Amino acid sequence: MKQLAIGIDIGGTNTVFGLVDKDGNCLAENKISTTAFEDINDYVKELSTEIKKLISSLKEEHEIIGIGMGAPNGNYFRGTVENAPNLKWKGIINFKDLFKKYFDYPVILTNDANAAAIGEMVYGAAKGMKDFVIVTLGTGVGSGFVANGELIYGNDGFAGELGHTIIFPEGRQCGCGRKGCLETYSSATGIVRTVNDMLRDSTEESLLRKYSEKEITSKIIYEAAKANDTVALEAFDFTSRVLGLALANTVAITSPEAIILFGGLSQAGDFIFKPTKMYMEYYMLNNFKNKVKLIPSALISRDAAVLGASALVWKSKM
Amino acid sequence: MKQLAIGIDIGGTNTVFGLVDKDGNCLAENKISTTAFEDINDYVKELSTEIKKLISSLKEEHEIIGIGMGAPNGNYFRGTVENAPNLKWKGIINFKDLFKKYFDYPVILTNDANAAAIGEMVYGAAKGMKDFVIVTLGTGVGSGFVANGELIYGNDGFAGELGHTIIFPEGRQCGCGRKGCLETYSSATGIVRTVNDMLRDSTEESLLRKYSEKEITSKIIYEAAKANDTVALEAFDFTSRVLGLALANTVAITSPEAIILFGGLSQAGDFIFKPTKMYMEYYMLNNFKNKVKLIPSALISRDAAVLGASALVWKSKM
Repeated sequence: MKQLAIGIDIGGTNTVFGLVDKDGNCLAENKISTTAFEDINDYVKELSTEIKKLISSLKEEHEIIGIGMGAPNGNYFRGTVENAPNLKWKGIINFKDLFKKYFDYPVILTNDANAAAIGEMVYGAAKGMKDFVIVTLGTGVGSGFVANGELIYGNDGFAGELGHTIIFPEGRQCGCGRKGCLETYSSATGIVRTVNDMLRDSTEESLLRKYSEKEITSKIIYEAAKANDTVALEAFDFTSRVLGLALANTVAITSPEAIILFGGLSQAGDFIFKPTKMYMEYYMLNNFKNKVKLIPSALISRDAAVLGASALVWKSKM
Repeated sequence: MKQLAIGIDIGGTNTVFGLVDKDGNCLAENKISTTAFEDINDYVKELSTEIKKLISSLKEEHEIIGIGMGAPNGNYFRGTVENAPNLKWKGIINFKDLFKKYFDYPVILTNDANAAAIGEMVYGAAKGMKDFVIVTLGTGVGSGFVANGELIYGNDGFAGELGHTIIFPEGRQCGCGRKGCLETYSSATGIVRTVNDMLRDSTEESLLRKYSEKEITSKIIYEAAKANDTVALEAFDFTSRVLGLALANTVAITSPEAIILFGGLSQAGDFIFKPTKMYMEYYMLNNFKNKVKLIPSALISRDAAVLGASALVWKSKM
């Protein structure tokens, strides 16, 4: 009988869920709106109903062995989502308890970047690695650290906030209330800030000048870079320089075999990978130079988040 | 029969070794010069002879269960010391193999900061902790990271170089060849550089003005701080500010239960602990504020390095 794990990714807009086998094949997938439910109980009820429907839709004989969830501010130890800034439900939500009403399966929950790390370890680019880091370059910067084959959850379950390491103590204002965090520079929103700064501070001609500050997106910057636009290329260079410094510092601490880049901005390919690798090596302590691979996620697909979440279940059986 | 571990600490000047029980009692201890031997084989021969003498001197019935070694640039995976800048023997020295000629016991080797971390876990301030960091503030800055109850050696065995994370990319020249590393600011030598910079750049009166640049030591700065000298106090403040920032960034990555400060500069007590704690909390991401203990080593004694080294053996039996 085929064993399957349920993977649930709670995003700010949608919640995607799927049924995944141990090789990372997603046999069925669906989604519901995350924002449509004011009451967390209504949300869990609807989600559970839809998951049960998805299970019933399977033709193949199967056995469900657990539920893995990736969620912003997810706490592995407590099975909770705590004060997630981009979710409607405030305070501490105990998903582990809430799901008990509907399912008998064990529930494992962590934040989305940690789930992505486990996904890479179980199905993806980090198969067989015991020490690696995943960095997700999206709206913000998330990260998951694996050492000695285990994810670092830390004492309180919230480890892995590379995006909130301070690179420039007097730098850009961050949404977290402090200044100069990595994610104010090396994220999809960070590169937009960089471009807007550059357009304001220089007279350099640029394809990007036809957009207003608010219109510019990382996608538009990427398109301009492909068209060899100087401002766009310089923005990628600066973004990568800050990221490369943060990654060199990361290597000095955990000495990983590889760093995996994931998420929106990593899709810019060579525009981000090449300069980031160059600056990472430039800032690297001699001991570690040219030892650490910088590679793309192997889960890049519409299923990535669900795969990561489901991998939590398979990892727990290893 | 009492089980004992041999602990060996290879320092730049002396090599100290002792016989330690599982509660951290050092039953016998001795030392030889590290610098007196041009040939590594002569050194190992002499060290082995002296260790055997120490064992013979024990009245109590005992069983030796292993050798633990702390050494600069020690590699846990290979049992080697690799290109240690402050040892005479260049290249890669395989102590694990060299000791085989003299002892049948298993040999476990790592760098001094990692050994200190294991020492704290087995006998000291981190007993029962699964996630903590030790930072040694000596001539340089070393560190050992423990996550999920295991030391992070990293992929190549050289993890834990917090002292060589870059805090100011265009900052002070570091012995490693790069600029702005933590250890150029927050070490015994770093605070001396800070004081010399301050004396040069200001006209502030100071007890420290009676010393030449080369005469000033961290001990002298500590004495001046005790006498309420403004320059000395400001130097501690700046040293702590940089350290506090580095520690806040460290917490964001590994979320430890505690950070343990160890080594010469940590002996300055409140002069370093109070401002470091203050700046650490100032720079800390909200999630982690007021959660992480900043505590002194519980191994501060002349045996600390030997205890750390011997703890490697006990840890391997846990």
